[in-house]
Amino acid sequence: MADQLALRSENFAEWYNQIVQKADLADYGAAKGTMIIKPYGYALWENIQAYLDKRFKLHGAKNAFFPTFIPLSYIQREKEHVEGFTPNLWLVTAGGGETLEEPYAVRPTSETTINMTVRNWIQSYRDLPLLLNLWNSCFRYELRTRLFLRTSEFLWQEGHTFHATWEEANQYALDIHNDAYLDFYAHAAAMPCIGGRKSEREKFPGADVTYTLEALMGDGRALQSCTSHNLGHNFAKSFDIRYLDRNNELQYVATASWGLSTRAIGGILMTHGDDKGLLMPPRIAPTQIVIVPIFGKSGDPAPVLDAAKQLARELSEYRVEIDARDDKTPGFKFNDWEMRGVPLRIEIGPKDIEKAQVVTARRDTGEKKFVPNAELAAHVKQTLDSIHDTLYARAKKFQDDHTFVVDTYAEFQERTAGEGGAGFLLAHWCGDDACEHAIQKETRATIRCIPFDQIKEKGKCIRCGNESDGRVVFAKAY
Amino acid sequence: MADQLALRSENFAEWYNQIVQKADLADYGAAKGTMIIKPYGYALWENIQAYLDKRFKLHGAKNAFFPTFIPLSYIQREKEHVEGFTPNLWLVTAGGGETLEEPYAVRPTSETTINMTVRNWIQSYRDLPLLLNLWNSCFRYELRTRLFLRTSEFLWQEGHTFHATWEEANQYALDIHNDAYLDFYAHAAAMPCIGGRKSEREKFPGADVTYTLEALMGDGRALQSCTSHNLGHNFAKSFDIRYLDRNNELQYVATASWGLSTRAIGGILMTHGDDKGLLMPPRIAPTQIVIVPIFGKSGDPAPVLDAAKQLARELSEYRVEIDARDDKTPGFKFNDWEMRGVPLRIEIGPKDIEKAQVVTARRDTGEKKFVPNAELAAHVKQTLDSIHDTLYARAKKFQDDHTFVVDTYAEFQERTAGEGGAGFLLAHWCGDDACEHAIQKETRATIRCIPFDQIKEKGKCIRCGNESDGRVVFAKAY
Repeated sequence: MADQLALRSENFAEWYNQIVQKADLADYGAAKGTMIIKPYGYALWENIQAYLDKRFKLHGAKNAFFPTFIPLSYIQREKEHVEGFTPNLWLVTAGGGETLEEPYAVRPTSETTINMTVRNWIQSYRDLPLLLNLWNSCFRYELRTRLFLRTSEFLWQEGHTFHATWEEANQYALDIHNDAYLDFYAHAAAMPCIGGRKSEREKFPGADVTYTLEALMGDGRALQSCTSHNLGHNFAKSFDIRYLDRNNELQYVATASWGLSTRAIGGILMTHGDDKGLLMPPRIAPTQIVIVPIFGKSGDPAPVLDAAKQLARELSEYRVEIDARDDKTPGFKFNDWEMRGVPLRIEIGPKDIEKAQVVTARRDTGEKKFVPNAELAAHVKQTLDSIHDTLYARAKKFQDDHTFVVDTYAEFQERTAGEGGAGFLLAHWCGDDACEHAIQKETRATIRCIPFDQIKEKGKCIRCGNESDGRVVFAKAY
Repeated sequence: MADQLALRSENFAEWYNQIVQKADLADYGAAKGTMIIKPYGYALWENIQAYLDKRFKLHGAKNAFFPTFIPLSYIQREKEHVEGFTPNLWLVTAGGGETLEEPYAVRPTSETTINMTVRNWIQSYRDLPLLLNLWNSCFRYELRTRLFLRTSEFLWQEGHTFHATWEEANQYALDIHNDAYLDFYAHAAAMPCIGGRKSEREKFPGADVTYTLEALMGDGRALQSCTSHNLGHNFAKSFDIRYLDRNNELQYVATASWGLSTRAIGGILMTHGDDKGLLMPPRIAPTQIVIVPIFGKSGDPAPVLDAAKQLARELSEYRVEIDARDDKTPGFKFNDWEMRGVPLRIEIGPKDIEKAQVVTARRDTGEKKFVPNAELAAHVKQTLDSIHDTLYARAKKFQDDHTFVVDTYAEFQERTAGEGGAGFLLAHWCGDDACEHAIQKETRATIRCIPFDQIKEKGKCIRCGNESDGRVVFAKAY
């Protein structure tokens, strides 16, 4: 076949590029580096949104909207921030036929414009905490494009919260990290992640501390899957945001920000899947169940289609599709939906109707079963949960199998040589930025995080040999 | 009081400008003409989204995402379209420190970029209909800003659908008009609207037919509240989108587009309300019920607060707020929530707890009632429905009272003189664009629509005296 899918086991990068388009998830936009998200991909994003939005609201965050255009002078107000973002800015320079006096940056992130606004909303400790979240488009100029992973415009949520103290801002960033992001990856996306904080070099421009979740993709590369920042008093000082505390004294607020983007979709696609195609985690799969009516070679298709529709009604708490195409064979349909990663398939034909049963097929194991109609509801629930567990366990095993304790720079260089991923490399690091930078230049591996579960252990920096208190997580990353 | 709210009955325009900010719905953004939507306003938008999104999906539409930046050459491809939109474009001319070879327009609407993409998705009749909807930001340069009504960036949904025939495109535009928009305004926003089609002058640039809902605001001005366009074959021909029909012959697709924006929020605010402030329609109100615990002058506030929390749990199917502020009097809180337009207030104090009752107060009539706890659930349901009905009936009466059959141009000019609104004016029009234009120049009234329920009736054009087959709806509009 001319349009045979590249094999995930042989050429991961090519598999990814092909599957994103073949499975109708996304396509390239006309403007440089942009992406079109097709209905199948967007439905995945809607499910991610629904899951996270509920959790943010449980933590008191409220959604709001801030304009896409940000005066350049705002962005220039926080020193580290402007250095971090200027190279990637898109600029609006004209409107209504006139050249603007001051160009607008197209939102690379909203810290500056929100801080500029919120300074007028906060007067006293009674106005705190102020917990905002935005679902919007984010714009960062990119030379190299990779759908979902690196695009000039992507969708995300950006939380921006204002607190009375540094400690509260820090705790809120950690709460979102754990109760929203980690929870989402474990219980919805079936992705095991390593949580920790970023080094000074890797943290967000303007943050005191950046927390991250790092996932390992099927090619051994790491993906930064979300971040939560304790911005301390940095932005409050740059934008002069102060409040009257209970003692009637003026204090700077402390701020946090936290975000997860459509990159998460890339992470899901690159964590699960096989040579047949994608494997969608059941709880957020755009289609959880596909029903394929088997019309048989002769006979009336109507009763089979009716039975399929009846099944769909009975399973209406799930996201169900019926594939009633009359110009495709069952075999073609099976392959097609397997390629798209639908977790569970149900087949129903004239004989099944007679016997009051259906055939189910799991996408993860391929296991097929005859299931009596009376047992179907319980079977579906149990099977979708089981597929979730299997996906998580497989990904965890893959992560464990590709996590290496490395003690010499020779081994480190060997493991990071070549084009592919290197897995997670647990190695000692002295804490020095110059050393981190040298390792990056020499091996293209970066420190993904200083893990929360770091074991205190004396050792020697993998590169310079100076003292270290514990291992950090290195990887080659997307 | 220095910050007394302007009276709606005395100065409607000033009332609107003040209330939008005082009720924490929105604020002005830094970039020219932009708007910040605060949590209370954004929650209203989320409720509007949820209501409409369900209806779009019932009609088979699927959500997707298309990039914000559109190459200028795309927009220039449809002749009427480029003329209609060029004066309002925002332009991106630089990215990543480089000047772009071709500037990008910042999405004024997505017809062009979608058509340019979808031509590759459609091959045969099997690919039709293709029903897409986008929830995104829309950008149109505005000199004069009015929050929610006229801003350089606003939120909306834009549906874009592709059909086999002109008739199907037309029917789909009408279905969305009736089953989504009209349904939403009647059953969620409590807004009576006049439905009809636009004149050639007022229709969407590039459409064969534009359908609209026109609502009458509290000052007698009309608000175009949504539009659905049958674009016929215009875009399909400009973008060369053809499909193989069942006879294997190439045909142009027919397209439709349809949209509703955050303008709808402006419509809701300007339809309902009184001198005390806003009046949110109960089914989409951000807060449906506010519980105000009455602590009394002495005694422990804890049992009252506990009782309020218990009430909130019992009413958890509604959007409920407890106002537990300890630095505000009950009277202040009553006024505050009335200003914000919360439909139902529940008061609970120590004596009410003893008597197993609460006090409820309706925002629309001010009626207060003692309600035994056992009857509260039924009372709340019934009262919220009743408030919806009252709001709709009041708005309908206002519309009826401000709809005038006008037969002479002298009366037409008199009714449209001055700064205020003129209500709906039902008058004969010859169908000539020049006449329509002259009326607009002379009176600032425009044809809002040729109503669906137009009565066939011979008459003479209000301005030129030529023959007319029926009355059209004129108004001064936002």
